[in-house]
Amino acid sequence: MTAAGSDELRAGGGRSYKTVQWVGGAVGGRPRLIDQTRLPGEFVEIDCDDVEAVWGAIKRLSVRGAPAIGVAAAYGAVLGARARGLADAATVRAALRQAADRLATSRPTAVNLFWALDRMRGVADAFATESGPALLERLLAEAEAVAAEDRAMCRAIGRHGAELIAADSGVLTHCNAGGLATADYGTALAVIFTAHEQGKRPRVFVDETRPLLQGARLTAWELLGRGVDATLICDGMAAQVMKEGRVQAVVVGADRIAANGDAANKIGTYGVAVLARFHGVPFYVAAPSSTFDLSLPDGSGIPIEQRDPGEVTEGFGRRTAPEGVAVYNPAFDVTPAALIDGIVTERGVIRPVSTAAVRAVVAPPS
Amino acid sequence: MTAAGSDELRAGGGRSYKTVQWVGGAVGGRPRLIDQTRLPGEFVEIDCDDVEAVWGAIKRLSVRGAPAIGVAAAYGAVLGARARGLADAATVRAALRQAADRLATSRPTAVNLFWALDRMRGVADAFATESGPALLERLLAEAEAVAAEDRAMCRAIGRHGAELIAADSGVLTHCNAGGLATADYGTALAVIFTAHEQGKRPRVFVDETRPLLQGARLTAWELLGRGVDATLICDGMAAQVMKEGRVQAVVVGADRIAANGDAANKIGTYGVAVLARFHGVPFYVAAPSSTFDLSLPDGSGIPIEQRDPGEVTEGFGRRTAPEGVAVYNPAFDVTPAALIDGIVTERGVIRPVSTAAVRAVVAPPS
Repeated sequence: MTAAGSDELRAGGGRSYKTVQWVGGAVGGRPRLIDQTRLPGEFVEIDCDDVEAVWGAIKRLSVRGAPAIGVAAAYGAVLGARARGLADAATVRAALRQAADRLATSRPTAVNLFWALDRMRGVADAFATESGPALLERLLAEAEAVAAEDRAMCRAIGRHGAELIAADSGVLTHCNAGGLATADYGTALAVIFTAHEQGKRPRVFVDETRPLLQGARLTAWELLGRGVDATLICDGMAAQVMKEGRVQAVVVGADRIAANGDAANKIGTYGVAVLARFHGVPFYVAAPSSTFDLSLPDGSGIPIEQRDPGEVTEGFGRRTAPEGVAVYNPAFDVTPAALIDGIVTERGVIRPVSTAAVRAVVAPPS
Repeated sequence: MTAAGSDELRAGGGRSYKTVQWVGGAVGGRPRLIDQTRLPGEFVEIDCDDVEAVWGAIKRLSVRGAPAIGVAAAYGAVLGARARGLADAATVRAALRQAADRLATSRPTAVNLFWALDRMRGVADAFATESGPALLERLLAEAEAVAAEDRAMCRAIGRHGAELIAADSGVLTHCNAGGLATADYGTALAVIFTAHEQGKRPRVFVDETRPLLQGARLTAWELLGRGVDATLICDGMAAQVMKEGRVQAVVVGADRIAANGDAANKIGTYGVAVLARFHGVPFYVAAPSSTFDLSLPDGSGIPIEQRDPGEVTEGFGRRTAPEGVAVYNPAFDVTPAALIDGIVTERGVIRPVSTAAVRAVVAPPS
């Protein structure tokens, strides 16, 4: 693994970047990804030279967000497929399968990871009679398709969601559901970026999102990079900002959405939804249809993961709480559908939110 | 100024401490105070040998909280009064006045500071015919009275407020309205401490209180020190904790309260009040009657101070947001009386909260 580029972040400098991309040809090329653990202090891209480099980047969260992880894994599988040479398709296919098995262990809970790797295995199986180089080209084409579909999903979400954003209005978001979590453009932030591109000049309030500060570190960085008006606030300031009439819509992402529209997302999202309702501000969730888990009738079946207390007590490299204090650190919360005014998917907006409306968009009768 | 004691904090160790105290006699003694800037990592007490040491301790927030500042200033005035010797009362009085003028410049907005210094000046004026040593004794006695009255105020608030806390219930608090902000026992935390002493076993959830983390640094430390069950959360987790039914009451302090009961307090308090109302959890403010500003009919007249963006972007000694991002950093917010279920004062509980009810307790007809 080598650092492909490193320089100090220039906020608002309009840097062009891709969260994950393939650089070069099938034989000599490699995946390049932004090391998100070093943002916003440093913008460093990592070139991955082998499967282990990709595995490590996913493992330590250099690349994060389910869609982005899927793309990185697909590219990693291409790297692995050529590891034993290109003598014949069987050699390539065997190497691909070994790489996919390894990559699948990097983030065991990321659904998009398995889905992307299954697509790569499928291509290796389907074109077993081609030459080694030809199969490798097919595999790279499939990985590029995974990335392209993700980009198209982001754009479609942006297009549908931007219709909900009025010109010259304030938008509040929480955590990072941006380009850094996807192949290119984000989900919640896609809505904001599209509105911005349409000339609507959204003024965005960014919850810093304790404990891990994804809002401060990643969302603020993305918004500045694209020239969007962004104001950082502490999570406890969202109510005051709403009270002052500065927010006309809230848009957030989601990790999992139940069949009735109950949506799990980063801790703090539920509180923002309550505050939005109190202040008469519409609250929207933006997520691809793949985020829905129709096996769950409602959000009560979504487990609330507890994370390391150190994220709260030593989240900034320095201890900020007394030794021995108990810590409650749920990683996410569930916002009930009743507090969600609309769910923006790549297929359209679910609004109002109900089990029937979700099914009509996510699993329409064939 | 000398460090009187320093050792590592032992959480829950039941350390006995006084935020501000006078150690020794009038002639040879001195004020001792906890250096709150070093909590919770280190417990260091500072002995102040002259007026400048007290002035500096107030200035750099080693001692903070309006009541505690008043007591520290009164003790500092005693130090200053003996600076020119005790030849006669006129000498002591002149030195006292000089010290008081100097101390008044340490925190220009702290009302209790001026009030305490005025009391000291009044004693110097009233006993101008006594001997120098006798006047010094009178001054120390007055400073001790200021401290004693503050302690009595805290105890009375605790006594009245504890009646609102059910046994084995969860209590959420925000920021630090504890003993560290007063001479001994706190306001909001006095309610919790008294309930604890009564055997009610409150389980306290402590908002860390970004940006300056007074909850994590100070409130958690105080609660552990007195053996109260304390759980630290990030501010964005309060909603989830309430949703899970873990909170039966919220108790916070106040910086200023208008005639109708609208209460200004640390930023984030208003949001907690909204969440409490949504979840059916009673929300209480605890503050001495001196906190009321009856010249303001409601909270709209309370200015919202904007503070340094660096508190948000570099609050932990490390930059956590991109350069150039805008920051909105209001120091406090105003919770409307309609969201406050009761205001606990040393004279009793104002409940329900209304202009008439406030006046009846704070400014009863004579």
